[in-house]
Amino acid sequence: STKLKIFSLNSNEPLAAEIAAEVGLPLGRCSVNRFSDGEIQINIEESIRGYDVFIVQSTSKPVNENLMELLIMIDAVKRASARTVNVVIPYYGYARQDRKARSREPITAKLVANLLETAGATRVVVLDLHAPQIQGFFDILIDHLLAVPLLSDYFKKQSGINLDDVIIVSPDHGGVTRARKMADRLKAPIAIIDKRRPRPNVAEVMNIVGNVEGKTAILIDDIIDTAGTITIAADALIKNGAKEVYACCSHPVLSGPAMQRIDDSPIKELVVTNSIYLPADERSAKIKQLSVASLLAETIARVYEQKSVSSLFD
Amino acid sequence: STKLKIFSLNSNEPLAAEIAAEVGLPLGRCSVNRFSDGEIQINIEESIRGYDVFIVQSTSKPVNENLMELLIMIDAVKRASARTVNVVIPYYGYARQDRKARSREPITAKLVANLLETAGATRVVVLDLHAPQIQGFFDILIDHLLAVPLLSDYFKKQSGINLDDVIIVSPDHGGVTRARKMADRLKAPIAIIDKRRPRPNVAEVMNIVGNVEGKTAILIDDIIDTAGTITIAADALIKNGAKEVYACCSHPVLSGPAMQRIDDSPIKELVVTNSIYLPADERSAKIKQLSVASLLAETIARVYEQKSVSSLFD
Ligand SMILES: Nc1ncnc2c1ncn2[C@@H]1O[C@H](COP(=O)(O)O)[C@@H](O)[C@H]1O
Ligand SMILES: Nc1ncnc2c1ncn2[C@@H]1O[C@H](COP(=O)(O)O)[C@@H](O)[C@H]1O
Repeated sequence: STKLKIFSLNSNEPLAAEIAAEVGLPLGRCSVNRFSDGEIQINIEESIRGYDVFIVQSTSKPVNENLMELLIMIDAVKRASARTVNVVIPYYGYARQDRKARSREPITAKLVANLLETAGATRVVVLDLHAPQIQGFFDILIDHLLAVPLLSDYFKKQSGINLDDVIIVSPDHGGVTRARKMADRLKAPIAIIDKRRPRPNVAEVMNIVGNVEGKTAILIDDIIDTAGTITIAADALIKNGAKEVYACCSHPVLSGPAMQRIDDSPIKELVVTNSIYLPADERSAKIKQLSVASLLAETIARVYEQKSVSSLFD
Repeated sequence: STKLKIFSLNSNEPLAAEIAAEVGLPLGRCSVNRFSDGEIQINIEESIRGYDVFIVQSTSKPVNENLMELLIMIDAVKRASARTVNVVIPYYGYARQDRKARSREPITAKLVANLLETAGATRVVVLDLHAPQIQGFFDILIDHLLAVPLLSDYFKKQSGINLDDVIIVSPDHGGVTRARKMADRLKAPIAIIDKRRPRPNVAEVMNIVGNVEGKTAILIDDIIDTAGTITIAADALIKNGAKEVYACCSHPVLSGPAMQRIDDSPIKELVVTNSIYLPADERSAKIKQLSVASLLAETIARVYEQKSVSSLFD
């Protein structure tokens, strides 16, 4: 009999349910509630002794609540004698705090990795880390999946745009490798939004490296948070003669003014994954959400069967 | 020159400021904010290289936010080359999850101890743990201070009640040792509220062990959360002939219906410490809050000077 169990916490139950359905199992039964004073109360409601357990939880907003739910659940699963404690974190929060940009800052992405290990995680499955170096923050096993294939396939097969006119655009220097990966899949050229500050206290100059005139530009980023970068980039593309602008990202954080900015921008469609749950009534009509459930279900099945997952990685 | 620095996070700044003033130092400068997506942003704004650093933070409501602030601050302090990273946790949240009461539950009080160590804490100072056994959850140094002396002194010297008529009452079996400690200080007898369920699915019977008739009863507990236990105990004391009822506790969690219950109860005055910050406008007029600042300041000074703190413990 299968000794595999998948549990969902509170950040993204729809995705967890989809994953479990793809694997062909019901979600494991557990209650994740709050005591009157706000402390998290977790109880696992079925035996998992000797099981390979997978816990699905994004550390998206509210990040500290979701992270503590995950840590406490790991503790409960470990103490319930699971064979392995695998955590599936489609969106890994705090990833942008991955180095000391200034003196006397924390490196919270590393702290979180240590906390997961301390709680008892034996393996981590993540999607598109802000920096791939974060893999090295873990001493336990880590599978790092990419969303580029999924996003590329959408533009190739479903978006209805003419691929001959496409140019893939990175909104900053940090994202060029990701743009290159997508361009390879779409057999398209790339461009880069090249911001620089000529002198301190002088406004940034926005330059585009590459010719976007008459093109269908597809902006790609890993995280879209307040949507400032991506919407300014979209404006610059139109000003430089692009015919139309699409955008895509792995993780739709979309905090603060993001939805309004996207609605007001020249972006025709914003294609994202469901690594972060977006309530239907707070979501811009321009957003198209693609599911990573198959990708994660396939990973879980292969990890459980001790098969290689590397072919899923690009 | 003094190489001691005290920082406050967001849970209880007034207490931290009082502690620093008693030690004779300004609070260390640091910014503890939130990014747009709710992630915690911490920056320490002065050098602490080679310092003994004390971080004051209660893990009270919102417990997960306050705990993550503390863990991230510990990481930042450690990486800023502090000599020692001491955390002063006047109220240690999750302490009631200190054992598996049912199968497949977490032991969150132990998890939190491990997380603090993993983040880099080298010493912990706490006040009145829900169970003293939690001291053993830590492998790092721990100082465990008690609030009983402070609470007892108030009733002895400031409350104006006649000590000859006093009886100290534990609201349940678990708190008898604490009641005994207070009774010794006030040279008073003790009583115990003895709840039991004669048969399953039959209402609890409330019995009082000890004679409270004509007495001034002082109820003592460590945590008052929803105030159900303490107000039911107060009713039972009055019904059994007590002249008047006072109550006291170390940690005023006071969640949900607590304030209303206290206002509606026969309790004349509820004496608590400031281990948890209570906003003035949400606080019942019956509450008297005593400061643990001197006790904590004295502990910090002695730890820094490498003197014994044991005389502070009872
Ligand atoms: N949640 C967050 N929201 C906005 N900025 C952040 C967040 N976390 C970290 N940062 C900052 O983002 C920068 C790193 O982003 P990047 O340069 O894109 O890797 C650092 O300077 C961080 O201080
Ligand atoms: N924050 C909380 N609020 C209410 N009950 C809790 C809380 N945390 C743990 N508990 C429960 O309280 C019980 C332990 O309390 P005690 O018997 O007083 O030590 C356990 O059964 C826990 O499930």
